[in-house]
Amino acid sequence: MRRIALALDLGGTNLRIAAVDADGNILHRVAEATVKTSSGDEITGQIIRLANECREHVRLVGDVFALTAAVPATIEQSTGILRQLPNLPALEGASIRDVLSRDLGLDVILENDANAAAYGENWLGASRGVDDSICLTLGTGVGGGLILNGRPFRGKDGTAGEIGHLVVEPEGVSCGCGGRGCLEQYASATALVRMARKNGLDVSTAHELARSAMAGDPRAAAAFDQMGYYLGVALSSLVNLLDPEIVVIGGGVAAAWELFIGPVRQQISERAFRLPAERVKIVRARLADDAGILGAARLAFEQARET
Amino acid sequence: MRRIALALDLGGTNLRIAAVDADGNILHRVAEATVKTSSGDEITGQIIRLANECREHVRLVGDVFALTAAVPATIEQSTGILRQLPNLPALEGASIRDVLSRDLGLDVILENDANAAAYGENWLGASRGVDDSICLTLGTGVGGGLILNGRPFRGKDGTAGEIGHLVVEPEGVSCGCGGRGCLEQYASATALVRMARKNGLDVSTAHELARSAMAGDPRAAAAFDQMGYYLGVALSSLVNLLDPEIVVIGGGVAAAWELFIGPVRQQISERAFRLPAERVKIVRARLADDAGILGAARLAFEQARET
Repeated sequence: MRRIALALDLGGTNLRIAAVDADGNILHRVAEATVKTSSGDEITGQIIRLANECREHVRLVGDVFALTAAVPATIEQSTGILRQLPNLPALEGASIRDVLSRDLGLDVILENDANAAAYGENWLGASRGVDDSICLTLGTGVGGGLILNGRPFRGKDGTAGEIGHLVVEPEGVSCGCGGRGCLEQYASATALVRMARKNGLDVSTAHELARSAMAGDPRAAAAFDQMGYYLGVALSSLVNLLDPEIVVIGGGVAAAWELFIGPVRQQISERAFRLPAERVKIVRARLADDAGILGAARLAFEQARET
Repeated sequence: MRRIALALDLGGTNLRIAAVDADGNILHRVAEATVKTSSGDEITGQIIRLANECREHVRLVGDVFALTAAVPATIEQSTGILRQLPNLPALEGASIRDVLSRDLGLDVILENDANAAAYGENWLGASRGVDDSICLTLGTGVGGGLILNGRPFRGKDGTAGEIGHLVVEPEGVSCGCGGRGCLEQYASATALVRMARKNGLDVSTAHELARSAMAGDPRAAAAFDQMGYYLGVALSSLVNLLDPEIVVIGGGVAAAWELFIGPVRQQISERAFRLPAERVKIVRARLADDAGILGAARLAFEQARET
């Protein structure tokens, strides 16, 4: 019988669970829209129902030994309590680890979703086998995860990796985090649309903006240039600070790669120390939506190996 | 017989060697002005002479088993070759590890000086026993060292930790590193003097500037405010990225602590994520010039324990 981990990707929009084996094969998947509720119990109920459904499907193939949840939150590692979930406020302060563990009869591991995605890419994706890598997700916001010495780096409170909140313009645009001039305000889909509108373009999505830029609209291209400039400023700081082997960039905005990667590389080449700047690889993520699921599953297998 | 490590702090100005035991006691010290020469051989010759002198002094007390050199350089870990030594150009490309090891008959370990200082503070100083800490040295330039998961973090090329070259003002002052707007251009002694002169003050050292500020000169105080602002911007980024337990600040400029720490804390409180911002400790370094020596010695004892 194979050993199988259940990996949960818990988002504000979708809730996805996959049964994954030790080689990263996805044996079965289930997904639903995350229930809209102010009750944490309803969400944990939905997770338990889907987890049991997924487990039932792989019953004849192997033994499920753990569930790892990638959550859009800061996790208090000692207690398993979730903090800072703007996209899932019903779970603020919830201790889902204990509830899930009791009801499923499984070891339950919690990980921040950006860290899980970085760890997934590091297992089977763009940064496979690399010791020190940085993973950015450019979507509605800018997410980040650090893999240092081959392990997710979480810091003292579990909040490390907030690359989207590096300051790139000290008196710049106000940010949802309470700060100002954060990378997220210059390199997210939201930021691209804002910058394009400031250039006089009437667009409502980054996708639409990318189409305009590819069709030759110079104002659309200028928004991507500006976005690439600031992303390059942030990556220059990261190269000087962490000297990573590889930087992996994913998320919806990464689809517009050719529109912003030139200015990114230009800034790194102008600003960062020559040795790491010339050596570092800047590449696209490979696992798309499965990065978080696979990273979560990997954590379960690693923890089982260590204990 | 005690086990003793020789720890070398190789600076552009001074060359200091100490014999250190496993508890961090400094048993003997020797120091000289670093020989002014374009010949790497003359410098290694001076090191060998002083190392032998120091070893002779502790001969009856214990066995010297290794020499660790804290060097103002990037070290190619596989070859031991030194790179990027603006303050000791004679050693650019030199392989001092092999020469010293052969002539002294000792294991020789090389470490970047800022990493060594951070590791020294982490052993016996301000960040004693802490897993994740950041160490900044505010002097002529701004040096930095990262201790992550209890170990110096060096990155892929050994260049990690260049906190002085985080970008804090994207189109700011040109930096000696080739970039622009680096923290070093706003938080070093050199930067303080430049900013004060721009305010119309006739000062030539940061020490003089600090005296003026403490005597009530508002233009002098304004230079420290500006320096604290940018240092706070950089530390906000670091808190969001690495969620360190403690940030240790040393170097000559740290003596003016009360003149800049207010704006530093203000920026962190305004910008960084609340959980780590409220928890992180920002403290003064404790070991002064001995931080590098002690960090170097600690590396020798740790390596001996591991092998």
